[in-house]
Amino acid sequence: MGISRILIANRGEIALRIHRAAHEMGIETVAVHSTADADAMHVRLADHAVCIGPPSATDSYLNVAAIISAAEISQADAIHPGYGFLSENAKFAEIVEAHGITWIGPKPEHIVTMGDKVEAKRTAGRLGLPLVPGSDGAVSDFEEAKKIADDIGYPVIIKAASGGGGRGMKVCESEDTLETLMKQAGSEAKAAFGDATVYIEKYLGNPRHIEFQVFGDGNGNAIHLGERDCSLQRRHQKVLEEAPSPVITPEDRARMGDVCAKAMADMGYRGAGTIEFLWENGAFYFIEMNTRLQVEHPVTEAITGLDLVREQIRVADGKPLSVTQDEIAFKGHAIECRINAEDPWTFAPSPGLVSAYHAAGGMHVRVDSGLYAGYRIPPYYDSMIAKLIVYGRTREGCIMRLRRALEEMVVEGVKTSIPLHQELIRQPDVLSGDYSIKWLEEWLKERAS
Amino acid sequence: MGISRILIANRGEIALRIHRAAHEMGIETVAVHSTADADAMHVRLADHAVCIGPPSATDSYLNVAAIISAAEISQADAIHPGYGFLSENAKFAEIVEAHGITWIGPKPEHIVTMGDKVEAKRTAGRLGLPLVPGSDGAVSDFEEAKKIADDIGYPVIIKAASGGGGRGMKVCESEDTLETLMKQAGSEAKAAFGDATVYIEKYLGNPRHIEFQVFGDGNGNAIHLGERDCSLQRRHQKVLEEAPSPVITPEDRARMGDVCAKAMADMGYRGAGTIEFLWENGAFYFIEMNTRLQVEHPVTEAITGLDLVREQIRVADGKPLSVTQDEIAFKGHAIECRINAEDPWTFAPSPGLVSAYHAAGGMHVRVDSGLYAGYRIPPYYDSMIAKLIVYGRTREGCIMRLRRALEEMVVEGVKTSIPLHQELIRQPDVLSGDYSIKWLEEWLKERAS
Repeated sequence: MGISRILIANRGEIALRIHRAAHEMGIETVAVHSTADADAMHVRLADHAVCIGPPSATDSYLNVAAIISAAEISQADAIHPGYGFLSENAKFAEIVEAHGITWIGPKPEHIVTMGDKVEAKRTAGRLGLPLVPGSDGAVSDFEEAKKIADDIGYPVIIKAASGGGGRGMKVCESEDTLETLMKQAGSEAKAAFGDATVYIEKYLGNPRHIEFQVFGDGNGNAIHLGERDCSLQRRHQKVLEEAPSPVITPEDRARMGDVCAKAMADMGYRGAGTIEFLWENGAFYFIEMNTRLQVEHPVTEAITGLDLVREQIRVADGKPLSVTQDEIAFKGHAIECRINAEDPWTFAPSPGLVSAYHAAGGMHVRVDSGLYAGYRIPPYYDSMIAKLIVYGRTREGCIMRLRRALEEMVVEGVKTSIPLHQELIRQPDVLSGDYSIKWLEEWLKERAS
Repeated sequence: MGISRILIANRGEIALRIHRAAHEMGIETVAVHSTADADAMHVRLADHAVCIGPPSATDSYLNVAAIISAAEISQADAIHPGYGFLSENAKFAEIVEAHGITWIGPKPEHIVTMGDKVEAKRTAGRLGLPLVPGSDGAVSDFEEAKKIADDIGYPVIIKAASGGGGRGMKVCESEDTLETLMKQAGSEAKAAFGDATVYIEKYLGNPRHIEFQVFGDGNGNAIHLGERDCSLQRRHQKVLEEAPSPVITPEDRARMGDVCAKAMADMGYRGAGTIEFLWENGAFYFIEMNTRLQVEHPVTEAITGLDLVREQIRVADGKPLSVTQDEIAFKGHAIECRINAEDPWTFAPSPGLVSAYHAAGGMHVRVDSGLYAGYRIPPYYDSMIAKLIVYGRTREGCIMRLRRALEEMVVEGVKTSIPLHQELIRQPDVLSGDYSIKWLEEWLKERAS
């Protein structure tokens, strides 16, 4: 009865994260690894380890047959996929379950639904999540466009239905230019994609990325654990995340959180999930849902005290959620810095031998990392090598603590993004919380010039 | 205005602890160090460093003139003494203040009062703290002894007034043997100390060490931060501490905590203090008060969320306490393991070169340590090299997390007490919380036989 041995189908800090939660529940762990990761920390600490292939992820961490075999050989009775790799592969989830192994993740059908962009938006809309308002499909004539734009309010964006990459896209600030811009967009679309069809959406000029952590038991009970602000991004990669968001009021948190939790309850969602929104001027617009644990989950853990991986394992094991919505209190502030093995300013990857490593310590400082002195960072995988998560009673206190923790972190032998974070958290806009998803790239551009 | 540069008159993890709190408040730090500590972490991280003498603590960390000079040279406007060394030296506190430097500690007169065992008990009694009941001085005849013993209840202990080391001490279980034992105690005392005078106290056969953390602003406001259970001791040295105590009820915590806080308020106590009690069968008996930060303060920080060093600095700077009693909530459970550089079973010190060091990480794990790979632990000072503090929502969860954290700690090149802790937290009595101050030594004796 119950899960007793978990195979962790992942690597790096998240494999270690899952190992820790499992061991704290008295559950054994099986590490799988490519030949490049034989000396990795997650392999060293796991109770059992199975090599599943050569360095290429396709042949190892994405190799379904090898992972299922490893689970059978090691008699694992559950598989946790972490994030990335196979974590949102519904087929894999189905195969795991077909082998009588517990899948520590959402129901495969929900992975499918949320993995399809169009289907996800349709479902979100049906479940009551706010979408970016716009035309429900193609808009052909000016009068119709005018009516829609009046309805949703300017600025609006005109987009090519067959488009992508910015071509055929026009931002329209007022009715005066609507007709002209529609024509221009149509011509551009026709030239670029051979299809002049356009549609209209509300234009978000400077939105923030706000995401809600949700959790369901699979039986119609679901909670939300508040939001994370992940607006500091470079090329759609999150760099620094915080919870709570500096711009979300307790009322908005409660209101949108309840909408999200209710959506998950109605869906019968199981396990951890994240509902991502763009936010501007107090309004939320659904973008997508991730049906897995997120990299940035520790900031939520810090302000709620809840261990999300433990909760995932419990729910997969058929247990109820360990807390009710009423029992969840949000306390203090947490920030996570993703530390990558890369040049802090050119972002060129910097794999290689870590000659010295020293984690920051002390009160309210958490380091999730598979690094150790003598470890060789392989060039084959994601460049994230550590997460530094700092908690404080206030946002200001959290930032001060983060500064001193970054001073203490030592990673020698490779370049890291630590210097980027040290500068980043001294920027006035970051200190005041005044940033959108465009801020980081603009700052980097300015800094480089 | 306000403290801007703190000289830390200490070494090791506590020097680092103070440095961290200071930096998080935007305050600069000055490290002082002996020649043996030139490469120590607290020296490396401080903004300024001053060498104050040769390895011998008498000539360096206890060298008042050198430390005051260092403060003047470095223009430090405050001194934090940490624990040990000069922390409970009232003369030093006075000298610091006479030089116009802020003393981050209690008022010198309170250090004096509580540093004198007899005076401390008298003061404690006057302030309403419960003392070990007994004869108020010498007891000469049997009838008087009988009356006192009846009053306080058996068992009682008869002690030589001039005594020590167990000679002239007799535990008496009932009236039947009282007269005989009194005579024996008197004869033994006469033989050993040339003085037959004896007194009587309630005998505590199997007490626990329970201490309350208190905090005063120096102006008559004081709070308590609950208790710590430090019963696991060897030769009066604490080995593992936890908060809350497994035996203290919320009602007892509130009642005794209020008594302690009121005593501190009445006294006008300033800064952090610890009131130590023996506890048996629901009753508390004052032993002594420490007028400084304790080694084990992080377990209190973990369950209250309060940063005690920050609080010390604030209060020394003339600011009010940052919380009221009503705002303090006790949440979850925390355990601290003191990790010493010593043989885990013979306790022989093991200084030397640390060839590899890796701190435990992950959720709710805190490491306070000045260790790093390549550091040479000097043989001149206390053997404690790290504190591992783990938090959990429940005591059981905390212990499970502690187990996995201990698995992760790597200290190579010297012997450490990590194996002791790993065995200790698997003992049924420790798991059930059923231990007194005698337990650890008895267990060690049994284990060795």
